[in-house]
Amino acid sequence: MRIDDAELAARRDSFAAALAGRGLAGAVLFDTQYVHYYTGFFFIPTERPIAFALAADGRGGMLVPRLELEHARANTAVSEVAHYDEYPGERHPMEALRELLAALGIRGALGADADGYPWVFGYRGPGLGEWTHVADLVEDQMAIKSAAEIELLRESCKWANLAHTLLQRYTRPGVSETEVETRASTEANAAMLDAIGPLYRAQSPYYSGAFAGYRGQIGRNAAIPHAHGNNIVFQAGDVLVTGASAPVWGYHSELERTMVIGSPSDEQKRLFDHMHALQTLAVDTIRPGVACAEVDRAVRGYYDQHDLWENWRHHVGHAIGMRYHEGPFLDRGDPTEIRPGMVFTVEPGLYSPTVGGFRHSDTIAVTGDGVEWLTYYPRDLEALTLQL
Amino acid sequence: MRIDDAELAARRDSFAAALAGRGLAGAVLFDTQYVHYYTGFFFIPTERPIAFALAADGRGGMLVPRLELEHARANTAVSEVAHYDEYPGERHPMEALRELLAALGIRGALGADADGYPWVFGYRGPGLGEWTHVADLVEDQMAIKSAAEIELLRESCKWANLAHTLLQRYTRPGVSETEVETRASTEANAAMLDAIGPLYRAQSPYYSGAFAGYRGQIGRNAAIPHAHGNNIVFQAGDVLVTGASAPVWGYHSELERTMVIGSPSDEQKRLFDHMHALQTLAVDTIRPGVACAEVDRAVRGYYDQHDLWENWRHHVGHAIGMRYHEGPFLDRGDPTEIRPGMVFTVEPGLYSPTVGGFRHSDTIAVTGDGVEWLTYYPRDLEALTLQL
Repeated sequence: MRIDDAELAARRDSFAAALAGRGLAGAVLFDTQYVHYYTGFFFIPTERPIAFALAADGRGGMLVPRLELEHARANTAVSEVAHYDEYPGERHPMEALRELLAALGIRGALGADADGYPWVFGYRGPGLGEWTHVADLVEDQMAIKSAAEIELLRESCKWANLAHTLLQRYTRPGVSETEVETRASTEANAAMLDAIGPLYRAQSPYYSGAFAGYRGQIGRNAAIPHAHGNNIVFQAGDVLVTGASAPVWGYHSELERTMVIGSPSDEQKRLFDHMHALQTLAVDTIRPGVACAEVDRAVRGYYDQHDLWENWRHHVGHAIGMRYHEGPFLDRGDPTEIRPGMVFTVEPGLYSPTVGGFRHSDTIAVTGDGVEWLTYYPRDLEALTLQL
Repeated sequence: MRIDDAELAARRDSFAAALAGRGLAGAVLFDTQYVHYYTGFFFIPTERPIAFALAADGRGGMLVPRLELEHARANTAVSEVAHYDEYPGERHPMEALRELLAALGIRGALGADADGYPWVFGYRGPGLGEWTHVADLVEDQMAIKSAAEIELLRESCKWANLAHTLLQRYTRPGVSETEVETRASTEANAAMLDAIGPLYRAQSPYYSGAFAGYRGQIGRNAAIPHAHGNNIVFQAGDVLVTGASAPVWGYHSELERTMVIGSPSDEQKRLFDHMHALQTLAVDTIRPGVACAEVDRAVRGYYDQHDLWENWRHHVGHAIGMRYHEGPFLDRGDPTEIRPGMVFTVEPGLYSPTVGGFRHSDTIAVTGDGVEWLTYYPRDLEALTLQL
């Protein structure tokens, strides 16, 4: 189910052509997901630099520590592998990088996604000297998903749906956030592993398996859009904002729902209904040819009409794929034209310090003439009310 | 149990003095853990830039999105808060950063940890213009842990020890990696949450709670030092390499053990005994005044003497704290002098493609005249042999 070698090669060809189009001799990429995107080589970043280099003629190479040498040599994206014994080691890894670039014949203008390997986990190292930022090329390419990528996102949605179903089933007054999250996530993940079998790979720097949870967005705490888990005990009357996903071969979907424990109050119902209308409006606005900004503006019009600005906290949504947030953004400041193959989360929210947070998030693919909902969990208040 | 406000203020004072010592008017830090270190403000990085700025006179300020405004204003480290509505938004967040620097009176030479907010999660933005790298000052400061930090690392070790105890207890032939990891981690984490109570905070970008697991380092797969989980089913005769930790208020310990299912073979015993001797030698070499490189060289001497180079894959260890790897490194290329308050993982390993991996990792604090083992799980082969 992973992205096949032919698709990886096509990605590299496209990137090499874009580099040549900018008059660059090649580029070096340090970002773990950029490397994964072009090579299928997955790693968790540490202080030991890893980089993928691509010459404008299409030849690829990798810089790896000794630990990863066999792994890199087995990768079909790569004709040259440079390695270093260790970090810091006796010879700085950036010396091996220079040799790699020379071996690939990258002698002219160099593109890169950063000025050298970033200083993470104690790594210290020099910049690249002269270089040109090309992360925009990578980002633009990653923004248009292929059929195989959308299939992986559909697979992610399926297991997120299972985790969320269990989360809703197990949530009731008196039990704690952690207890419910752990049970729902454990069971959903076990089912996913048994269903897909040993070929399954998460390949995610963020998540190790299918999960659903609350991140502390419970009751009045749900007024904080990105709260952190606090192991809160559920009470009747709580408004809950959920989150569920599952990493599959590096791809992530997003499913979020607003739920209420017991019969909703009038104010809970009012905010829920506005949130539902906002999300429907946003999805109805998305289609090829429309600017991302236009979707945010349409939604902002609804906040205007219904006097909801005190409940606004964030824009409508963002693209999603190998990163759980990525560009373009459904934001009035993003003029990017929406195109088939883009995949967005759509999640306008309403937040009240006294009542809580109200947000659904669905993962929506742009098709030739409209959208396809990749997530399919019920959205209506009746289905999301937990009976006491 | 979190680091108190007085200690956070002392950290900022020390950093401000170091900035002044370099002739800088102030600095801006984008790294999530650098911000956390100086302010106690924890966030998970996204496309919405967050930054902490410190003037050389000691005044602090933060740049945050609207979402985090109340959270930032409540922080005692900060006298100025600049915010932007959203990313991308109508006004680029870096304009608000410029205003923040002006409000703090940072007008001369600027220090920073990166050339602007890094391009993650779809963020795109300009560099800082003229700036000086000061991440080395931050790293040097973070390398010396206070008594309160070491207390948090001890707390982390305690819950890692519980998770590891359960991991060992539940591991047996026929059950799968995921099943055992999930059960051990869930129970250990639930116990930690119930023991520490509602004041517990993980504040980790890496881990959400106490855990122990295998990352696929089972049988011959254990020959890959940083394998990824594959949901392998345990078999008699397997060599296993474990890993356990628990995030507590942003701090992480590291505990790893080599275990064998059933009576060890002669070759398993031979490699285990060498690994045990290597780790003992490494710990015995660590003391104030010795160079980090010296520890690696002593261990390398043992590989020489016993003809073990084909089983070598990595250096002896690394510092640990807010990041699960950080500098300095117990590596022949790191001349840093070992000082009281440094905390290292000590984990020389031996790897055989036919037998598997052999590595213990302990978390060791440097004291005034030697070391203190913060981890305390049994290290001997008898205790780590799983009886059939």
